[in-house]
Amino acid sequence: MEEGTFDLKKFEIQSGLEIDITLKYTLVGEINENKDNCILVLTSYSATHEDALELIPDRETFDTSTFCFIVINMIGNSASSSPSNTLNPFDGPRFPLVTVHDNVRAQHQLITEELGITQLRLVMGFSMGGLQTFEWACQHSNMIDAILPICGAAKVSKHNWLFLEGAKAALRADQKFEGGDYIENPEIGMDAFAKVYAAWVFSQDFFREELYRNMGMESVEEVVSFMKGYFGRREPNDLIAMIETWQSADIAYNNLHKGDFEGALRSISCKAIVMPSRTDLYFRVEDSENEVKHMPNAELRVIDSKFGHVAGSGMDPVGKRGIGLAIKDLLS
Amino acid sequence: MEEGTFDLKKFEIQSGLEIDITLKYTLVGEINENKDNCILVLTSYSATHEDALELIPDRETFDTSTFCFIVINMIGNSASSSPSNTLNPFDGPRFPLVTVHDNVRAQHQLITEELGITQLRLVMGFSMGGLQTFEWACQHSNMIDAILPICGAAKVSKHNWLFLEGAKAALRADQKFEGGDYIENPEIGMDAFAKVYAAWVFSQDFFREELYRNMGMESVEEVVSFMKGYFGRREPNDLIAMIETWQSADIAYNNLHKGDFEGALRSISCKAIVMPSRTDLYFRVEDSENEVKHMPNAELRVIDSKFGHVAGSGMDPVGKRGIGLAIKDLLS
Repeated sequence: MEEGTFDLKKFEIQSGLEIDITLKYTLVGEINENKDNCILVLTSYSATHEDALELIPDRETFDTSTFCFIVINMIGNSASSSPSNTLNPFDGPRFPLVTVHDNVRAQHQLITEELGITQLRLVMGFSMGGLQTFEWACQHSNMIDAILPICGAAKVSKHNWLFLEGAKAALRADQKFEGGDYIENPEIGMDAFAKVYAAWVFSQDFFREELYRNMGMESVEEVVSFMKGYFGRREPNDLIAMIETWQSADIAYNNLHKGDFEGALRSISCKAIVMPSRTDLYFRVEDSENEVKHMPNAELRVIDSKFGHVAGSGMDPVGKRGIGLAIKDLLS
Repeated sequence: MEEGTFDLKKFEIQSGLEIDITLKYTLVGEINENKDNCILVLTSYSATHEDALELIPDRETFDTSTFCFIVINMIGNSASSSPSNTLNPFDGPRFPLVTVHDNVRAQHQLITEELGITQLRLVMGFSMGGLQTFEWACQHSNMIDAILPICGAAKVSKHNWLFLEGAKAALRADQKFEGGDYIENPEIGMDAFAKVYAAWVFSQDFFREELYRNMGMESVEEVVSFMKGYFGRREPNDLIAMIETWQSADIAYNNLHKGDFEGALRSISCKAIVMPSRTDLYFRVEDSENEVKHMPNAELRVIDSKFGHVAGSGMDPVGKRGIGLAIKDLLS
């Protein structure tokens, strides 16, 4: 595993601001001589490249040893440029809105200019990684053989936006948050955030059937603790920044597609497997169905799991195997 | 419409405490001479008798003019005894946990001792009113002809408990809440609470298809404002108290059923229509199915609506008509 850093000076984002951006990335495997064995993996909410590596199939499902996985950390995730590691004037709550489109434009420069890759075998990602996957497909369809958005979408839905608005409000309700200029960690707000999120990220069935036991947890309270630990790795401002990236996601919100959502979907000419989870409470199967309907070369393949959104994270064995088989099909 | 008040002095609740309780209730229609035309309606979360009246069918669906609806306000709802209207030592955050069982025991005294009713034609309620309906059926099956729990349950599910835990944490995260001894209204916490709740109470489909337009709202933001107004009628401590009543709901948690949930369901000998909404995100059809399986005389009748939980409130025309027809069937 090789880690790298890519700097972009005065990178212009969609809001018109210019900011210095650093992308942290990781290679798993080696880029071959022809540079035609690369799989780009984008990261999910609050996750880093380490979490994204969970998506790489087990050898029994599909041997990927001849490929090179390139995992790029999303802006805001604490590894790449984020409120928590950016200097004045864009530090903390002054970090600007960086859209999914901005992320992908920066990633594209890393892939082409830094790594010299002109064709990607596959672009994939879970959750917000799925948002970035759709954006890649819309902007750079001709340099991609296939995409695999897992529990993601081409656009944030109204309901998803609202769930995020609630989680964000719960975190910010703690006065110690101080509009993002916190002196000490707003622990009460972070606790509320994790509790709100925990009920959304798994499914009702997951709790009814106590499937958390399969993840080594004994009770609902332990699920809450798990989520607190998961988000506790991040600074509150980073959590907020990533949510705002998520809430603004729309493949048509750019100069190329000018608001034409269906047109943007039709432009995705590469092979695609769109992979929602049957029990995901915010990236809904119905939304994926609608996307696939407009994509010329796409298959809808639903993960039949009760893990809710987490089915696509690599933490659910059913989901992980399904993802592995989809990768196999897309690379064959 | 006639309003009444019923006082219970030193009423012993399940926790062992003795508190003075006042129940506010409303009669719609007249109790007949034989006192055999009464329908008991229990109230839902944050609602009062006025909201519950929405459940009374339109005349075109079913003419109920020969019946008398008795609507009893749940303890904690600001009309009956609540943190906001109780004196020291049980004022505000010192108001004790009052369970669904406690509510029903007090309601039973009102019905039998105050109103002299020995047989009820129907007990019904939406949401937390459904929790109370199940409790009535388990405790007093022989004095009830039929029950109609709408978008409710016999026991709070783990997932439902967690969603409520998140909403509660969001409200409490505001330091102005001051552990319930707030001087001024914790507006930021109330705002977060309404946002968290709004994403749960409707369904994903409701937002995707913009069904809020059928309720006179133009945007997701207006849905949030609607919810803020709905909860803004209540004091924060009352909202918390009702949530804790909800979170502790279990028909088997009492001396009669001693933790035997299935046994408690089997004891519901009266006729029942259990009526979940297909798209309810917390009172799930699967939970209702499980309940009906153990009830000797029950029918599962799912409201086929995209309004989510709100389908059972009387605010959704599809749900309202279904409820009216169920009332008709149960009274015929």
